[in-house]
Amino acid sequence: MPAFFAPSMGRLIEELSKLPGIGSKSAQRLALHLVKRSEEDVRSLAEALMDAKSSVQHCSVCSNLTDADPCEICSDENRRRDLVCVVEDPSDVVAMERTRDYDGLYHVLHGLISPMDGVGPDELRIRSLLDRVRQEGVEEVILATDPTVEGEATAMYLARILRPLGISVSRIARGLPEGGDLDYADEATLSRALQGRYPVESD
Amino acid sequence: MPAFFAPSMGRLIEELSKLPGIGSKSAQRLALHLVKRSEEDVRSLAEALMDAKSSVQHCSVCSNLTDADPCEICSDENRRRDLVCVVEDPSDVVAMERTRDYDGLYHVLHGLISPMDGVGPDELRIRSLLDRVRQEGVEEVILATDPTVEGEATAMYLARILRPLGISVSRIARGLPEGGDLDYADEATLSRALQGRYPVESD
Repeated sequence: MPAFFAPSMGRLIEELSKLPGIGSKSAQRLALHLVKRSEEDVRSLAEALMDAKSSVQHCSVCSNLTDADPCEICSDENRRRDLVCVVEDPSDVVAMERTRDYDGLYHVLHGLISPMDGVGPDELRIRSLLDRVRQEGVEEVILATDPTVEGEATAMYLARILRPLGISVSRIARGLPEGGDLDYADEATLSRALQGRYPVESD
Repeated sequence: MPAFFAPSMGRLIEELSKLPGIGSKSAQRLALHLVKRSEEDVRSLAEALMDAKSSVQHCSVCSNLTDADPCEICSDENRRRDLVCVVEDPSDVVAMERTRDYDGLYHVLHGLISPMDGVGPDELRIRSLLDRVRQEGVEEVILATDPTVEGEATAMYLARILRPLGISVSRIARGLPEGGDLDYADEATLSRALQGRYPVESD
């Protein structure tokens, strides 16, 4: 299809359609939009691309993406250093930070254990997590992987290897989402909510 | 939200979310994907962006996007020069070319008449269409704007100003889409299909 476009457009469409979630139709629409934008705007996007690629690295402590090593969170003196929240990837750190309810550190696994996809424990940042727990006075590890088959398997694996180290290991709660509707909840979520019920204090 | 990311990631996410159809969540996902790609891949995308922006121009004849002026289609000796198909934008030229059923030239309006959006005839490439018809031996103009309110209004406007020039003016047919299902066709489409019925020759 790009053959019907000017060569430079064809190449741009081809490059854009390599991005995840961008089909050839969206790539075409994006390319047509981009050539209408000012040269300054396009340069700004191109530079942001190159700049992110060359600046971003993994934090040597928590493996989160960062421009400086250690990352801003690991070097923040106001955070508790005895609490580590384990997540699948950098966007999960963003989700946790958005709650403004967590003041510990993170550990980014960069994936979940998934035998189907050939991802075992050695492909994830698990050894560095164990080193942190052993050497840096960590007292609690919160397992905050997704409540999916892979997330659960990864959490169970980590719990098994972390517990012998004599620290608390916890898992984020499952249940009805805030503002959710009992009627529309799936059975698994509702079962979880029931199992996880907690006593209500009367005044 | 980008505040929770490394600065260079934040800037990339911000730039990506300026694109049409890319919300902050998709921009985040794209950015995380891009920093995982090789530097060569990212450079290739950045260069395609800058290159398309600097090379692509409007053809001085038909206003389609092109790297060379006049465009490949306008300078193709094998195409009929007496037939011009008027479309809204460059992606419509691609759609027409994909049929491999059209061997005339094009004229790209770069928009449709839409009083609601403040787009009148003067904002479109209509004057250059009239000049072509007057000066270049055009015998038929096919109005191939979308079968929408704006597309129809634009086609009617063009028909009114083109007819006095003594040429044939036609409009692409409306009806059931090929492979379509009568059951599922909306009333307007079905009405059009009924109005546009044609005699079937018996052998």
